[in-house]
Amino acid sequence: MSVSEPEADHPQNPIRFGILGCARIAHKFCRAISLLPSGTATISCISSRSLDKARQFATSARLLSSAKLLSPYEALLEDTSVDAVYIPLPTSQHVTWAVASAAKGKHVLIEKPVALCVEEVERILEACEKNGVLFMDGSTWQHHPRTAEMRRLIDDPNRIGQLRLIHTSCSFLATPEFLQNDIRVKPDLDSLGALGDLGWYCIGSILWATNYNLPRTVVASPCLSLNSSGVILSCSASLYWDNGLVATLNCSFLSHVSMDLSVHGSKGTLLVRDLTIPYREDAALFEVISGAHFAELHIGWTKKPEEVVVETPLPQEALMVLEFVKEVKLVWDKKSEPNLKWADTSRKTQMVLDAVKRSIDQNFEPVYL
Amino acid sequence: MSVSEPEADHPQNPIRFGILGCARIAHKFCRAISLLPSGTATISCISSRSLDKARQFATSARLLSSAKLLSPYEALLEDTSVDAVYIPLPTSQHVTWAVASAAKGKHVLIEKPVALCVEEVERILEACEKNGVLFMDGSTWQHHPRTAEMRRLIDDPNRIGQLRLIHTSCSFLATPEFLQNDIRVKPDLDSLGALGDLGWYCIGSILWATNYNLPRTVVASPCLSLNSSGVILSCSASLYWDNGLVATLNCSFLSHVSMDLSVHGSKGTLLVRDLTIPYREDAALFEVISGAHFAELHIGWTKKPEEVVVETPLPQEALMVLEFVKEVKLVWDKKSEPNLKWADTSRKTQMVLDAVKRSIDQNFEPVYL
Repeated sequence: MSVSEPEADHPQNPIRFGILGCARIAHKFCRAISLLPSGTATISCISSRSLDKARQFATSARLLSSAKLLSPYEALLEDTSVDAVYIPLPTSQHVTWAVASAAKGKHVLIEKPVALCVEEVERILEACEKNGVLFMDGSTWQHHPRTAEMRRLIDDPNRIGQLRLIHTSCSFLATPEFLQNDIRVKPDLDSLGALGDLGWYCIGSILWATNYNLPRTVVASPCLSLNSSGVILSCSASLYWDNGLVATLNCSFLSHVSMDLSVHGSKGTLLVRDLTIPYREDAALFEVISGAHFAELHIGWTKKPEEVVVETPLPQEALMVLEFVKEVKLVWDKKSEPNLKWADTSRKTQMVLDAVKRSIDQNFEPVYL
Repeated sequence: MSVSEPEADHPQNPIRFGILGCARIAHKFCRAISLLPSGTATISCISSRSLDKARQFATSARLLSSAKLLSPYEALLEDTSVDAVYIPLPTSQHVTWAVASAAKGKHVLIEKPVALCVEEVERILEACEKNGVLFMDGSTWQHHPRTAEMRRLIDDPNRIGQLRLIHTSCSFLATPEFLQNDIRVKPDLDSLGALGDLGWYCIGSILWATNYNLPRTVVASPCLSLNSSGVILSCSASLYWDNGLVATLNCSFLSHVSMDLSVHGSKGTLLVRDLTIPYREDAALFEVISGAHFAELHIGWTKKPEEVVVETPLPQEALMVLEFVKEVKLVWDKKSEPNLKWADTSRKTQMVLDAVKRSIDQNFEPVYL
């Protein structure tokens, strides 16, 4: 370690991220870091399969003067100026590089879907736990203050009440170029396709609404679109709980952009239209209605949904990094073991995702968890 | 016929309705008639199982001085001052009285669900066709100008595009008193329960969105609530079309009030929250978004849904009666046979409703149409 390098593992120092793979979404991550208060986090290293690609990325992200460029990925893991890795690699490579990162004592922030199956997730989480590093997946919406406000309403026994129905839809209309060339339609890179990319959000938000109670039964619908390599372009599924709760999810590369979450309970309903990527960055809204009835003679309702606007000082991806940094600093400060909260949500999300995939593979038969 | 009675079957005369059964919803019908331009329609007769009940109803509806009170129902069917019947009787009695009304040459406006099964619907429709009378069910939302505006957008190839996903939820939280005593939870009166009362709207709106293309497959979900008599209090189902369209429906007496319809297509999405009973009477809105994408770096959307507000000069139930009157007058004027449009929508709605019921009865197996 050179004398000019800041001492790692000290609560006062910024967390130094290394980026493993120069995917397009890594630009969003770089921007998030740049929006944080000075001294929170830095990008110390960028690695790619080729140095040229790392240089191109760093140039475009204006990090050429501040970040080390490294290739191959192993070089980044050996670098002592990296406290944590951000992994936006194709899903099929997640388990290898997340486990290797943890083994080198790097905290792990990884894009979703976390892996191709829950067994891979378990391997990643075991490596993180064994090496005392934090794990978090890149579900940025969980870090928006809107999500906290919706959580508060769902948990308030007088607002939504017992959950009855959750509906989610997450989709965008992929271009012909995407359907031909994107990583997310390649069987060797992201074999879960739309289920992994968008279904992760659907399942994650359903589980979030239930406070991560797993459903008993998962059934995929026979309306399924696969590409010629068998990658899912569009699918839907229903989840059932023993208490009568039903959740439906739809994820698709073949439908106009949607990011809906509707939570219907005995006492109220909560609605959001832009859950995973809010329409705008500075504020996001949801609708809530509680205790409404039909007016006399059923000629209207006694009340309408109210719009709740939640402002945010930083975009959700920056808040995610802030949360990650906060948790890492608790570990540095020896105040706690790495928080397992995010590991738990990722594991459960992948378990349900696996169940949908299994139902698809088993001719749409119910799968019991 | 007394000399003071207006001559029936003349295009210039108002349509004279007889009410068969004094259900609470008949008050809404009476109010609708009272809101129509003078000379459009009148309520000439009110019948109930007892004259006392008819009198109570007429008093409360301020029709005591203008409407004849009759009992039993047969008396109303014999009355020559009745051109058309409005039938808000319990569903189990629909087939008997709708067929009898048609046989007496009365046009038929009947509350939903039309019947307990499609065979009963066919008997009603055959009787209407044989006797040259109009048939319409009481799905008032179909007559709101908002519905026409949404139809226009769905049919515009550039706004919603190919349909991918339709989601509907129709529910209200029934009181303990309702769950004990309401007609809609009694096996001998309305054995379809929430599926008949609210599922009718879900299925009707799904079929409406598809321009009444029937699904290939119908599967009820195993999350089902029945009362101790086996009447459905809550159920959900998925419908599948060969072209990949999926629709989900949820109907419940056990969930906060909802009347959602979301139509997701390849090019856009249409959303409405108060489909069957708008929040207010004078105007109703829906949201539509077409051609949206994620903004650069996926930090927002290129556009937000726009709200479309559709004003209406009359509440939808009054517009329904206007439409009924218009069609009857075309028949009177010998300009056409009774329009079969509404018969067709009712028949198809009941076909899908039957399929959901059959799937429930067959242990949630898929039912093929």
